Amino acid sequence: MTPSKIPTRTVERLARYRRIVRERADKGVQSLYSHELAALAAGTAAQVRRDLMSIGCTGSSNYGYRVSELLESIGRAIDDADLQRVALVGVGNLGAALLDFAAHCCPNIVISAAFDLDPGKTDRVYHGVHVYNDSSIAEVVRAQKINVAIICVPASAAQEVVDQLVAAGVSGILNFAPKILRVPINVYVEQIDMTVALEKVAYFTRLRDAARKER
Amino acid sequence: MTPSKIPTRTVERLARYRRIVRERADKGVQSLYSHELAALAAGTAAQVRRDLMSIGCTGSSNYGYRVSELLESIGRAIDDADLQRVALVGVGNLGAALLDFAAHCCPNIVISAAFDLDPGKTDRVYHGVHVYNDSSIAEVVRAQKINVAIICVPASAAQEVVDQLVAAGVSGILNFAPKILRVPINVYVEQIDMTVALEKVAYFTRLRDAARKER
Repeated sequence: MTPSKIPTRTVERLARYRRIVRERADKGVQSLYSHELAALAAGTAAQVRRDLMSIGCTGSSNYGYRVSELLESIGRAIDDADLQRVALVGVGNLGAALLDFAAHCCPNIVISAAFDLDPGKTDRVYHGVHVYNDSSIAEVVRAQKINVAIICVPASAAQEVVDQLVAAGVSGILNFAPKILRVPINVYVEQIDMTVALEKVAYFTRLRDAARKER
Repeated sequence: MTPSKIPTRTVERLARYRRIVRERADKGVQSLYSHELAALAAGTAAQVRRDLMSIGCTGSSNYGYRVSELLESIGRAIDDADLQRVALVGVGNLGAALLDFAAHCCPNIVISAAFDLDPGKTDRVYHGVHVYNDSSIAEVVRAQKINVAIICVPASAAQEVVDQLVAAGVSGILNFAPKILRVPINVYVEQIDMTVALEKVAYFTRLRDAARKER
């Protein structure tokens, strides 16, 4: 069954709501009002209600949204009913950090294989994930039916790795390499650009500091 | 002087154009058409022209935009004329990766101090940056006039660290901890949420795979 198509930004917000709801649930919170969730997610209450309504989740004016219902509805909307297997390529500092982060993803997303060129890192288990040599990418990706890959290799190595992954059947890429990737049109790429993020924060910080000094 | 206020998304795009232009410049490219830059930045040519026009950069129909002029105009628009000092807190895997990435930021943004709680990591220089104990945050941030901080500590430690940084004068935060931060209204926060990004990629990959199978 084709999952229903939810707009990009909505998927992003739903995933963020879930992380927040889980954080509140860990503190013993059992229900949340849309305005509470909006404040935590840096959005508006109307937006939260619209997003949740679109996945069939309606709150009550008495107690807002029940945490258990929120988690179930969001999961039904954006998670795979089956396990979704992910490969991580490049077990350097960033790759190691991501293996750790991914353990906190929804339980249906699992990094099931990691790859590196360094013989000192391969053929061992790291954060519960087996690290293979890059030369095994095609074989392992096919055997494990992996369709998503996280790219943590240096920019200079990214394109070659992505070509191998795509040829082996990967159709979704989360790219941390500061490098423009060429992929077939049917491959989804999300780029996280750390230096762009830092330059943006630096700019807006300076802007606010300057405005404050002039007051 | 207060820098002119450029909209958030435009700053983000300008920073991204710069990274792409630098990548092309490294390959010996001396000029770029708006449609080339647009294709590399996954945007439209009209958007590129509008963004560049807004910072006073106009191309020529003969050769497009000169790389040198692009880099200069973007730098003038979004960089600090002086050095902007950044602190990084949490020198784990992610922090170490970011120290490396930040070396590729614009030259006016410098991570000038790092902090960690682990005595095994403090009082040494890592990627050219001195690592201090967290207990020195207030002192070092004030002495170095640091106004931006990158948070790479675990979620459970993030709020306490941010409180210290803000009290010492930091007004911009790039947060990698999967944690909602409480900050005063004048503090700018940009959150990079790795698990949200992975969940989003997983969703859209599945959607495309399912659509392809039905064809």
